[in-house]
Amino acid sequence: MSIGMERQLDCSYDQALEKLPAALKAEGFGVLTEIDVSATLKQKIDVTFRRYKILGACNPHYAHQALSHDLNIGVLLPCNLVVYENDQGTATVLSIDPLQTLAAADPALSEIATTVQGKLNTVLQSL
Amino acid sequence: MSIGMERQLDCSYDQALEKLPAALKAEGFGVLTEIDVSATLKQKIDVTFRRYKILGACNPHYAHQALSHDLNIGVLLPCNLVVYENDQGTATVLSIDPLQTLAAADPALSEIATTVQGKLNTVLQSL
Repeated sequence: MSIGMERQLDCSYDQALEKLPAALKAEGFGVLTEIDVSATLKQKIDVTFRRYKILGACNPHYAHQALSHDLNIGVLLPCNLVVYENDQGTATVLSIDPLQTLAAADPALSEIATTVQGKLNTVLQSL
Repeated sequence: MSIGMERQLDCSYDQALEKLPAALKAEGFGVLTEIDVSATLKQKIDVTFRRYKILGACNPHYAHQALSHDLNIGVLLPCNLVVYENDQGTATVLSIDPLQTLAAADPALSEIATTVQGKLNTVLQSL
């Protein structure tokens, strides 16, 4: 299977990162974490890697619903989105697919996962 | 299936959170992100939830190997560990199982996932 839901943008990496928080907010997601992968790899193991960030997005309403149903589901939260500079010099944005993570781990979460999948897809299409 | 790899500890939530960074470091993981779930739910939607944190741990060597093989795998990184206060008043610690995440998404990552699974299991057993 392909991993997550992907969209290749026409804009730059920096522009994609600038747009993303507002696009997420419009669907009820806040950005709780941000990892600069290239900076981390440089700092920790002195490796040069393309510009690449991992954002942890959370819609607290659905996170609470999922956690109330299954206390252990937090290990698959928050919903990650990745932004990286692709070989064409523009940005690729990738989101987890909650059907591949939440619903695969606990089929009883399929309805929530489908709703959140739709919201993340709206975010990707709005960029 | 059960989600991730779980261990119920005899110690308190606070003690588990205190022990975890050193246990992770011993296996080459740094803690890159930390989400206080209960504080976030209280702040965002005024819900009271048990004490619960999600830590994002990264072993940069294996993260780099995985990303070099599959650029999109970042959407399933870092390796999450969850600590929460269970109904007995002690701490439950849960880690993702990389075979359920990385290797399930990309079978070519099975070898790396098995190695990282072993390291996370060592972390859990050392607490």
